Amino acid sequence: MDRLFHARGQGLPDVLRLRAGGGLVLPDAVCRPGDAGEVAALLERCSLDGIRMIPWGGGTSVTGGVNIPSGPEPVVSADLSELAGLVDLDVRSGLATFDAGTTGPQVEAALEPHGLTLGHFPQSWELSTVGGWIATRSSGQESMGYGRIDDLVAGLELVSPAGRLALQATPGTAAGPELRRLVTGSEGRFGVITRATLRVRPRPEARVVTAALLRSWNDGLEVVRELVQAGVPLTMARLSDAAETQVAMAIGLASSRLGGVLRRYLDLRRIGEEACLLLFGTDGEPWTVRSTLSCARSVIRRHRGAILGASPGRKWLADRFRHPYLRDALLDRGFVTDTFETAATWSQVDEVRATVSTAVDAALDQFGEKTILLCHVSHPYRDGTSLYFTFFFRSVADPEENISRWATAKRAATEALVASGATLSHHHGVGSWHAPWLEAEIGPLGRDILSIVAGRLDPRQILNPHVLTDPTDRLEE
Amino acid sequence: MDRLFHARGQGLPDVLRLRAGGGLVLPDAVCRPGDAGEVAALLERCSLDGIRMIPWGGGTSVTGGVNIPSGPEPVVSADLSELAGLVDLDVRSGLATFDAGTTGPQVEAALEPHGLTLGHFPQSWELSTVGGWIATRSSGQESMGYGRIDDLVAGLELVSPAGRLALQATPGTAAGPELRRLVTGSEGRFGVITRATLRVRPRPEARVVTAALLRSWNDGLEVVRELVQAGVPLTMARLSDAAETQVAMAIGLASSRLGGVLRRYLDLRRIGEEACLLLFGTDGEPWTVRSTLSCARSVIRRHRGAILGASPGRKWLADRFRHPYLRDALLDRGFVTDTFETAATWSQVDEVRATVSTAVDAALDQFGEKTILLCHVSHPYRDGTSLYFTFFFRSVADPEENISRWATAKRAATEALVASGATLSHHHGVGSWHAPWLEAEIGPLGRDILSIVAGRLDPRQILNPHVLTDPTDRLEE
Repeated sequence: MDRLFHARGQGLPDVLRLRAGGGLVLPDAVCRPGDAGEVAALLERCSLDGIRMIPWGGGTSVTGGVNIPSGPEPVVSADLSELAGLVDLDVRSGLATFDAGTTGPQVEAALEPHGLTLGHFPQSWELSTVGGWIATRSSGQESMGYGRIDDLVAGLELVSPAGRLALQATPGTAAGPELRRLVTGSEGRFGVITRATLRVRPRPEARVVTAALLRSWNDGLEVVRELVQAGVPLTMARLSDAAETQVAMAIGLASSRLGGVLRRYLDLRRIGEEACLLLFGTDGEPWTVRSTLSCARSVIRRHRGAILGASPGRKWLADRFRHPYLRDALLDRGFVTDTFETAATWSQVDEVRATVSTAVDAALDQFGEKTILLCHVSHPYRDGTSLYFTFFFRSVADPEENISRWATAKRAATEALVASGATLSHHHGVGSWHAPWLEAEIGPLGRDILSIVAGRLDPRQILNPHVLTDPTDRLEE
Repeated sequence: MDRLFHARGQGLPDVLRLRAGGGLVLPDAVCRPGDAGEVAALLERCSLDGIRMIPWGGGTSVTGGVNIPSGPEPVVSADLSELAGLVDLDVRSGLATFDAGTTGPQVEAALEPHGLTLGHFPQSWELSTVGGWIATRSSGQESMGYGRIDDLVAGLELVSPAGRLALQATPGTAAGPELRRLVTGSEGRFGVITRATLRVRPRPEARVVTAALLRSWNDGLEVVRELVQAGVPLTMARLSDAAETQVAMAIGLASSRLGGVLRRYLDLRRIGEEACLLLFGTDGEPWTVRSTLSCARSVIRRHRGAILGASPGRKWLADRFRHPYLRDALLDRGFVTDTFETAATWSQVDEVRATVSTAVDAALDQFGEKTILLCHVSHPYRDGTSLYFTFFFRSVADPEENISRWATAKRAATEALVASGATLSHHHGVGSWHAPWLEAEIGPLGRDILSIVAGRLDPRQILNPHVLTDPTDRLEE
């Protein structure tokens, strides 16, 4: 059971294979190092004996990042759950040092008695870990206020087969290129992240997410762009397109407020089928929360949006870590569903969405299947935003055929992203599934830089050699 | 004259040697490539013939970063002033693409007609360039609001002897390690930065810098820490220690307001000799400026500070790019002066300042010279702040002896910084003068990573081999 549990991450083909019970490659052993010294000893032993090692945080990769590669070499999964906990807390500087295997809830539980929070809430928060967040360049749902994990890492420690790289916490530095940012996103190729010093903040007194309906996707985009470019201190803004808005209504996110009175109100404001749901929120002292939300509402009203109030936001906050589990329920009902995401500049957003939709439609059309594609904006920046896509198609009896259809859609989507100049991933990472397209984004020289650094830190190439720089298409493995 | 102008940067020994007229190594040629193709051709030719090439932006390095190394190889200075100008402007996304040789004033002049600003104002702004800012990980005086150059770079292009690395603009990405941040701070070792896409913002309607006096350095530190950790949206905060405050008063920064009435007011508030001057400012719409400053003032009053008003701030804004020229006037009057800087977490700040002061005092005491050391905090972050030091000592007739005394003090200061866990530099960079200490900060493995990347991109090691990773002490060269 332990080996099976560590065989794969949480991507769609992972779940399909686990449900079908076939096509699984298991690690030969699962190890649980208890400190950085044991990580180093394990790396040394694996290097000597040519054993591959896959670092394992929460196992929530949706990019094939922790999957056990097939091949003749023995493979060890290095589960970091025993290398966990708060190591040091500098309240004055707002810096908390955690061992890498600490999960999201463990981080917040350790900070809570000190009145502090990290504020990093990726959808995988319940299971994922400090080390995993850094290795995959994670972004939390409130990154608009708290920043990406890239911004939250003040210092870190990496244990590689070639030795230890310890980068102390510093608020800002010009001491050469930023090696912390080279380790961040290295997905286990450069070594095992064993410890990190993270920037923490006072725990907010209040957290409010509230909702509005905009007349159209374009109105919504303008609102979000204006809010972020004007520096309105929101911690999150999430704009669903019309299709996703309909689904959100149907699953009850906003239904409690959609009684007859509200419907008449929306009709009055000419908000119809093209309406797009905007969730926006902030946290802090109650009076700053009120003033920030009031400022956001005035922008929304100027764009003729309708304010829905806090009920949909409360529901979203309550359910935000539960949405991924809908996938299993949908599979039970005969639908395959998956998500992918990207980021693009504000000027690119429209074209990226259109190109990607067309590509996924065309890919599934080959099988005579219609798809439903939903899209939302969720991590806005001054210069652009993330775009998150969810697609559905009817499943067939043969799991291999479902995987093959998924892979066809995934390839089409990824090629469309790269061709339209959007990034390969905003927060899921590269893993093995996106790796064949990384060169299209960073060029052959960029890929080569990653390879030679990996070669220096891990000369025997025992650590995750199938992720990041490996051009092999492993979508159907 | 052209070769002489490109022989050295603007560090103290550079100025001393230029004034003395001896000990100068000149480049064998100065080239001015007009586009990225010409940069590539120049690199190819230099690689083939074993000619060293020193990229030259504004020539304002104070770390020996553009100095021509002595040695048998011919050396070309690659002046990028003809590779300048606004290449592309995406107003919707707030992204402006500049060629690397564009200077600060050229950047702002190109953005001004569009109602935009970059907001990056290092003290060298009048002369320094986009490429130089990125190569040295520059930080502007308003980085508290606009961010460091690291944060402003959305995309960039590097031309290296091994080829071109083009990283498109993206608002946020998880597509592997952040190569933009590997190029940022590479100080010419990896190639020539030829172009960058920078994040720009609407030009603020108002910019106000105002002043206060705190009773002590510790009171001042608490105020600055509280302001930044509470997220008060200032764009700058600069706290001088008591010694620097006295100098600021003496040179008139605050004197216009220090009439008899004010003196009585300060006495009443028990603000005496230990008083520390705080300049703080923000920009934006007039009403947000007012509310931000009012919020800052309430924090200052809570710490029993005295508000001085806007006159010292206006003077600082008017003179902020002129302060470095004081060095020449002081040299004319028989005083050697230099500055160095670092950053440390809030918990480290006090010890770093004490350790560094003692080290510089002891170093100059060897020559029977007293030093005056001034210190200020100027780029605060949630987790810490930069610390900027200015020191003075009496010059002697022999310029070599002045350089030797300076080098002794500089070595002592740098060793003290590194030993106390502070970073080697917050914004001056590494250059050749700090390079011997870089390994103490990033470890042998960190230094090795930089070396192998440099080796891959510049196999013949023609580009600035004396900076960043070279352990040779060149302070007295």
